[in-house]
Amino acid sequence: MSHKLFLLPGDGIGPEIMNEVKAIINWMNANMDVTFECDEGLVGGSAYDACGEAISEEDMAKALAADAVMFGAVGGPKWADVPYDKRPEAGLLRLRKDLGLFANLRPALCYPALADSSSLKKELVEGLDILIVRELTGGVYFGEPKEVVTLEDGQQRAVDTQVYTTSEIERITRVAFDLAKTRSNRVSSAEKHNVMKSGVLWKQIVTKIGSEEYPDTPLEHVLADNCAMQLVRRPKQYDVIVCDNLFGDILSDVAAMLTGSLGMLPSASLGAPDAVTGKRKAMYEPVHGSAPDISGTGSANPIATIASFAMALRYSFEMVKEADMVEKAIANVLEKGLRTRDIAKEGDTTVTTTQMGAAIIAELEAL
Amino acid sequence: MSHKLFLLPGDGIGPEIMNEVKAIINWMNANMDVTFECDEGLVGGSAYDACGEAISEEDMAKALAADAVMFGAVGGPKWADVPYDKRPEAGLLRLRKDLGLFANLRPALCYPALADSSSLKKELVEGLDILIVRELTGGVYFGEPKEVVTLEDGQQRAVDTQVYTTSEIERITRVAFDLAKTRSNRVSSAEKHNVMKSGVLWKQIVTKIGSEEYPDTPLEHVLADNCAMQLVRRPKQYDVIVCDNLFGDILSDVAAMLTGSLGMLPSASLGAPDAVTGKRKAMYEPVHGSAPDISGTGSANPIATIASFAMALRYSFEMVKEADMVEKAIANVLEKGLRTRDIAKEGDTTVTTTQMGAAIIAELEAL
Ligand SMILES: CC(C)[C@H](C(=O)O)[C@@H](O)C(=O)O
Ligand SMILES: CC(C)[C@H](C(=O)O)[C@@H](O)C(=O)O
Repeated sequence: MSHKLFLLPGDGIGPEIMNEVKAIINWMNANMDVTFECDEGLVGGSAYDACGEAISEEDMAKALAADAVMFGAVGGPKWADVPYDKRPEAGLLRLRKDLGLFANLRPALCYPALADSSSLKKELVEGLDILIVRELTGGVYFGEPKEVVTLEDGQQRAVDTQVYTTSEIERITRVAFDLAKTRSNRVSSAEKHNVMKSGVLWKQIVTKIGSEEYPDTPLEHVLADNCAMQLVRRPKQYDVIVCDNLFGDILSDVAAMLTGSLGMLPSASLGAPDAVTGKRKAMYEPVHGSAPDISGTGSANPIATIASFAMALRYSFEMVKEADMVEKAIANVLEKGLRTRDIAKEGDTTVTTTQMGAAIIAELEAL
Repeated sequence: MSHKLFLLPGDGIGPEIMNEVKAIINWMNANMDVTFECDEGLVGGSAYDACGEAISEEDMAKALAADAVMFGAVGGPKWADVPYDKRPEAGLLRLRKDLGLFANLRPALCYPALADSSSLKKELVEGLDILIVRELTGGVYFGEPKEVVTLEDGQQRAVDTQVYTTSEIERITRVAFDLAKTRSNRVSSAEKHNVMKSGVLWKQIVTKIGSEEYPDTPLEHVLADNCAMQLVRRPKQYDVIVCDNLFGDILSDVAAMLTGSLGMLPSASLGAPDAVTGKRKAMYEPVHGSAPDISGTGSANPIATIASFAMALRYSFEMVKEADMVEKAIANVLEKGLRTRDIAKEGDTTVTTTQMGAAIIAELEAL
């Protein structure tokens, strides 16, 4: 079985953490009954430096042709002043939009070995396992008009537009319910129907899909502001949270931070199944950013990116056993006390990015 | 000196907690060199029941004529199905808009006696004192179009519009900097300039006002999603956070929850100074909601509303000494161990709403 992966390491620590994914891919190619063919491109500031765009047309075409894209991270102070439509994030947003990756899955998982490093009291996060299902190609991220105009009196007026249609809400709702069924079978839908018309439509459609198609999955509606609060107060009350693009951005960051495992969390962005082949476009990326401040120091934690590759195995390649193995290998190195700097406590000795990657491969060998 | 207060207790526990503010007002009228004249109206579901609107024109006129409005809380399951423009929140939003209350001040303060009840580890919240300055009359709350339309194919399409102009951002920025100067003199501005054009304008204007008018106040820009994270990670890094209406809604709820004092937190919503009199329109309300589940049980905590009255003394009536007294009285009853049910720990004996109110008055007597 051969699979085409397109790697977009990006900026900052992106290339360093992607190297460790490549090492795992090489190990799998050598040791398992599978072949991953990897090609690599540029995205973000490094693409801008090379071709004046946040991603080239050629690399966009490769991303579209691949079975899955592995994305590192983009951005950094170096590109603070590039034109808006060429800023590093524009590459990421274009990939999401043009690949049709409407479903962003963000697990917030508290690794037992790290429960201590949460800001929250240990009992509140121990065993935490939330999945945020964020709509990723609609809402205020892409709605038009989106502009700054100068008015007659010299004032400027900025506009962003949040748009959602029935079908956009329906499909993300189904993703959330389908995933809930593989987990604790509870869905919480977060919006602001008390203030936003998109929230009114959101609540209405989620309610309809839930009662008509998933009558056996309990559904709860929660205002997004209250949801952010409840995540801090009692996070374990949640299983799957489904929400729009902007609320998902914020709620998933809060949820990620709660776990104490921020540098460890992966994400998957999935498209709709192709009408003919049934295959979904997909991109996998760590939740953390490009961390320009530590780039080049060898201290970046590759686990989030490796865990993102495990999500690729699970969601793009139906390699559930192998995905479980990678996740188990990660849990094992943590149990054994290996720590990159971001997850080390005072007094811990730390390992480098490559040492962490190598240790995970050693665990894979031993499994 | 005589001041006109307009009381809008609202729904659920609103009337119960407002009663305790009335008791304090009576005490002040009897014991201090001041006269508060109180009138009272209906807002939210109770107004809808009485007149079919979330607030009557008559009460709106009274709110406009008052020196300050004291607001309780609105909403409850009873009014889940009233028409959108008559829902309880519509009364609150109309008051904010028609009174021009663009500046919402939300202190997130960790009362020392309650540091233990935060979800966060004690050392992270002990001494926490953040002020969120939220823009309250613009953004996605009020921008047009705001609608759900049915498309030709039968699909529905919902739109909300985030709009900000230069002057709207300038005035809230100045409020934030002016307040920072009375505190730790640091401002953090939260937006999503990497995705939203309103964020681009926001960042640009805040930067300009900061450097031109407040060169001695350090200013930091933070992405709203990262800000939500940082509030969980290390909340004490913040002094004043300034942000738009929607981000302010969420960030202030996160900040409030961190303190462990959620039922204790007040807010002030202020308008621009009148060109002639220099007076600002103002409304004061607790951050918590109407808690219909505990309404009528006598267990509601009146402290947030009483602390909101202290903010009224400070911001509307220049009664700084009296504001300090009320805040001191609150701190004292907490130090003495008085707890309503929401802030009680297992084994604590609890007091009722009126007992708490009476205890605060007793402290005032003793100060
Ligand atoms: C980098 C940025 C454009 C992006 C977003 O806002 O979606 C990031 O915050 C994320 O959550 O993936
Ligand atoms: C009740 C609701 C309309 C309101 C808001 O969204 O502003 C509330 O959440 C708040 O923060 O005051």
